[in-house]
Amino acid sequence: MNYKIDNLQYCNWSRKIFQINRDAGLDAVHVTIVYHEDYDELQDVLVSWNKHFEENSDLIFLGKNYKDIERAKKENKTAIFFGFQNCSPIEDDIGLVEKVHEQGCRFMQLTYNNQSLLATGCYEKNDSGVTNFGKETIKEMNRVGIVIDMSHSAEKSTLDAIDLSEKPIAITHANPNFWYTAKRNKSNDLLKTLSQSGGMLGLSLYAHHLKDSTKCTLESFCGMVAKTAEIMGTKNIGIGSDLCLNQPDSIVEWMRNGTWTKSKNYGEGSKNKPGFPKQPDWFLDARGFKNLELGLNKIGFNKEEINGILGNNWYNFYKGINK
Amino acid sequence: MNYKIDNLQYCNWSRKIFQINRDAGLDAVHVTIVYHEDYDELQDVLVSWNKHFEENSDLIFLGKNYKDIERAKKENKTAIFFGFQNCSPIEDDIGLVEKVHEQGCRFMQLTYNNQSLLATGCYEKNDSGVTNFGKETIKEMNRVGIVIDMSHSAEKSTLDAIDLSEKPIAITHANPNFWYTAKRNKSNDLLKTLSQSGGMLGLSLYAHHLKDSTKCTLESFCGMVAKTAEIMGTKNIGIGSDLCLNQPDSIVEWMRNGTWTKSKNYGEGSKNKPGFPKQPDWFLDARGFKNLELGLNKIGFNKEEINGILGNNWYNFYKGINK
Repeated sequence: MNYKIDNLQYCNWSRKIFQINRDAGLDAVHVTIVYHEDYDELQDVLVSWNKHFEENSDLIFLGKNYKDIERAKKENKTAIFFGFQNCSPIEDDIGLVEKVHEQGCRFMQLTYNNQSLLATGCYEKNDSGVTNFGKETIKEMNRVGIVIDMSHSAEKSTLDAIDLSEKPIAITHANPNFWYTAKRNKSNDLLKTLSQSGGMLGLSLYAHHLKDSTKCTLESFCGMVAKTAEIMGTKNIGIGSDLCLNQPDSIVEWMRNGTWTKSKNYGEGSKNKPGFPKQPDWFLDARGFKNLELGLNKIGFNKEEINGILGNNWYNFYKGINK
Repeated sequence: MNYKIDNLQYCNWSRKIFQINRDAGLDAVHVTIVYHEDYDELQDVLVSWNKHFEENSDLIFLGKNYKDIERAKKENKTAIFFGFQNCSPIEDDIGLVEKVHEQGCRFMQLTYNNQSLLATGCYEKNDSGVTNFGKETIKEMNRVGIVIDMSHSAEKSTLDAIDLSEKPIAITHANPNFWYTAKRNKSNDLLKTLSQSGGMLGLSLYAHHLKDSTKCTLESFCGMVAKTAEIMGTKNIGIGSDLCLNQPDSIVEWMRNGTWTKSKNYGEGSKNKPGFPKQPDWFLDARGFKNLELGLNKIGFNKEEINGILGNNWYNFYKGINK
């Protein structure tokens, strides 16, 4: 059986987008449900997701583990797996890790761009690695079954997390630095260590992570995948598109600035380009998976490898985490 | 005019203790009102302080700036200045800095023992210095008038804070490492940089910061003060006793563990000595200021220097901060 999985989207959710994901044949999507929200604010978000599930029960349901990916396939639906892009919802309380797991959280970044209580983000000047509270939290995430996601974390913190975690970790949405150098992209050494530890890289289709940004070609992207596979093998690579469909620019401003600064931070953007960048025309939404399939075939991947990259590798990762 | 100031106490507050502080002749005390409490929890603490002020209006009142130290002297009362030992009450929101200032906060540690969102605590393995959010917060604390307190912070973070802050900072309660080596005590280099920047060191009378702990002698302590004055001069040294009168041992356990760990952390203590240590017999409470006066005289300080160390230096610091 082959599964199609997009392991990172943060869209302005609507029936239309759930329908697009179905049209794309996605059996599972890991969706970001919070960035800077604390525990109480998370509760409001969960209420809005309950509404989505109720109103779109023919298209989506809440995924808890790999069996829900199998169920989604059978029922022609998309299993939605919840994730956090920052650790804000657990505040300073180790006891909230289990609570958010009970409420559906399956992925949590130890940091967004800045320093968190757990580790260092990729936009800080110095990276002190995983903190005392971070070490306790990793143990607890391992215990209850939340995947450690280091997409936005700095390098030492990421290597620490790989080392400290008893279970493989994930970088759900980022690309290799060798192809496009950006604070959010990752070094060859890190990618090698990640794959050797059984961890997954979700390749991003977000323009700020792409060589030539919006003008990035399918050929260039697939060439990058081939070279990444030389470093990591073909079984630890998947897709984490980072699609932010229909989000207004105020959202990316909030993602970057939260409530931590009075001056304006542009993150991956700039003063002249503060908003969301446009998607490349061959990946406007998840239906672009079809183009990826063609491109990966053209660059020389075989069918099994392509199916792995487009979903089976993530499926196996989910299965390995919750045996 | 001479003022007597203890620039750090965290007692289990009662009329009895306010009376002891009056008997000791204290014109001002900087009191820790929170450690790990968030903004909402701070509100509860403030309510309890309103009760203290109402019930003991003949002994104490809330201090806002140096003029309240002068007023306290005139009225034979003790001005109480609020401080935080962690930045938890501002959560991840720069806007809360001004809010807590409006509510009386005049000192805030950027960290307690662990990494915070602002900087690194002295019990972390690595110290990445002041974070992006920390830089913004220092600017805002400077603007609204909250003193940056680095008593529990790691060295690079402290040096960063001195460098970044436009106003002098404080280490309200710690001792020099040359006398007693402890994670909480400070290096000569740091003390020199602190005094050169106009910052203050409040010398601690807490047994875990003292050479020979509870058995530390008055002579040993005053000898340390003399040597510290050789490094820092006599005008940037004060007292921050760290008195925790009548606190049950459960409080020190909470101070160290908050809600961040499931295993037990003993901080400065140990498994065999998990509780509050006893005070040395010459400083059982603030009335020990009298013994300090005698000891500092014996070691060779002149009257002006002694008055400086026992309060005038802190008074001048308060005055310099809010001219």
